[in-house]
Amino acid sequence: MLHTPLTELLGIQHPIVQGGMAWVATWELALAVSEAGALGIYGAGNAPPDLVRGQVRQIAQRTQRPYGLNIPLFSPYVDEVLAICVEEGVPVVTTGAGNPAPYLERLKSAGIKVIPVVASAALAKRLERAGADAVIAEGAESGGHSVPVIAAGGIADGRGLAAALALGAAGVQMGTRFICTEECIAHANYKQAILRASERSTMVTGVTVGHPVRCIRNQMARAFDELEKRGASEEEILSFGTGRLRQAAMEGDVTSGSLMAGQAAGLVHDIVPARELVERTIREAEEAMDRLASCCRGEGS
Amino acid sequence: MLHTPLTELLGIQHPIVQGGMAWVATWELALAVSEAGALGIYGAGNAPPDLVRGQVRQIAQRTQRPYGLNIPLFSPYVDEVLAICVEEGVPVVTTGAGNPAPYLERLKSAGIKVIPVVASAALAKRLERAGADAVIAEGAESGGHSVPVIAAGGIADGRGLAAALALGAAGVQMGTRFICTEECIAHANYKQAILRASERSTMVTGVTVGHPVRCIRNQMARAFDELEKRGASEEEILSFGTGRLRQAAMEGDVTSGSLMAGQAAGLVHDIVPARELVERTIREAEEAMDRLASCCRGEGS
Repeated sequence: MLHTPLTELLGIQHPIVQGGMAWVATWELALAVSEAGALGIYGAGNAPPDLVRGQVRQIAQRTQRPYGLNIPLFSPYVDEVLAICVEEGVPVVTTGAGNPAPYLERLKSAGIKVIPVVASAALAKRLERAGADAVIAEGAESGGHSVPVIAAGGIADGRGLAAALALGAAGVQMGTRFICTEECIAHANYKQAILRASERSTMVTGVTVGHPVRCIRNQMARAFDELEKRGASEEEILSFGTGRLRQAAMEGDVTSGSLMAGQAAGLVHDIVPARELVERTIREAEEAMDRLASCCRGEGS
Repeated sequence: MLHTPLTELLGIQHPIVQGGMAWVATWELALAVSEAGALGIYGAGNAPPDLVRGQVRQIAQRTQRPYGLNIPLFSPYVDEVLAICVEEGVPVVTTGAGNPAPYLERLKSAGIKVIPVVASAALAKRLERAGADAVIAEGAESGGHSVPVIAAGGIADGRGLAAALALGAAGVQMGTRFICTEECIAHANYKQAILRASERSTMVTGVTVGHPVRCIRNQMARAFDELEKRGASEEEILSFGTGRLRQAAMEGDVTSGSLMAGQAAGLVHDIVPARELVERTIREAEEAMDRLASCCRGEGS
């Protein structure tokens, strides 16, 4: 068992947050992760309010444990989805793709814990002052904060969790790793593509249109990259990309679909139940800490 | 004190390797770092053989402790410099920018420990089989190796060291952090630019010509980037970049010079003697490990 300010803040057993990936982080996965003692997250993506409400209820009816909802702030339904969170009593909201400051008070006054994803120390500090309960730091930045920092990006096992805690984080968020669980409804072809990937298999597309996305290099990713390189219009690029994640994650089209995944794909080697993954991650982290302690006692050599 | 397979392999006190940065990792810095119980490295860069021999002798005459030499394999003097290492009995050679397999046997048979910088797990495994004594892994890849892995990139303090050990590394290499030591001969303006930098202050240039370099964003870096973006010829780009690091590091020109630095620049806040830096880093790592241990004991909350 690892106790940190994050387990305390959220009332969870393990300092692990599941990423709220659109399309693949459905109620089935979120429920399984929360029941395993970590924080399961339903990824609302751009989904319409009715669908979101249905998903939230599936989780709420089946567990007494904390769970969360992730909303990317570019969703056309941000206001409606946040209203649903208040109405349905969603315990935790994580936000991506923007600055959630305008929504903080409304959510906080409803008793919801709000955890924004931040890409810089400066934004993290602004959001702390504005009342965020914790922050999810993508990349190397962590520590020096007054609220718990959740490290994200490149983490897929207990060594990564131990490393994040050593850096001063209070927990981790794992996205790609949770796609390869039995409860995740992603298409088997998508999961297999992650299993096959090495740490060099991914690339970033979409930088030119302001939506950088890391995905496994395939025909679609190469074509998208070509389009960006030859200076295609933003409209052409966005229209080319629309629906591609669904195509891969739901239909299993690993050629023309977008196989969104982090570099951590190279660390994913099996498909297991979410509970087994969470418990194994904690066990590995404890082993890593034991190994560290043995360095201090001079047993490392 | 932290004992790991790396301290054992090299006969050093602390599992810290100083990066062999061209121009700034001179004999003065390497000597100070080795005398502090870590591994100091002279960065040969493209320097001509006579200069290299003089630098190596300055170190060898002043310390009984292990030290190393870094040679980027694009140097026009690779053969001469490696011959000097054999003749002068340099204990450790680290290599960058290429595959050192052709040189391994010659160095190993002279009793030199060879530690290549690798950018992928596949290359690391090939070089292990070829006889490398350890590898320096830039980026997230570490673990699963039969030789010690030294983590590099983004590390500038003891939390980073503890995190790297948790991931399975046997030690770390720090480059940017060591520039801000009293013994480093880099120009005061260059050091100040690193102190002022945040984690968002750097950018990568040179990708189009196959020499990616991370540096602090300044007029030079922006102009270089523009040149690449408008598809200038490789010749034009390389000629524009020539001498820029020297201009920043030696002459202190922080506008037109190239301020090479990692993202870890955001973690560097003071200029201290190398010994103080090494000892502080170890102390911070031990503190991070104590904090981790308290999470296991349930004191984290």
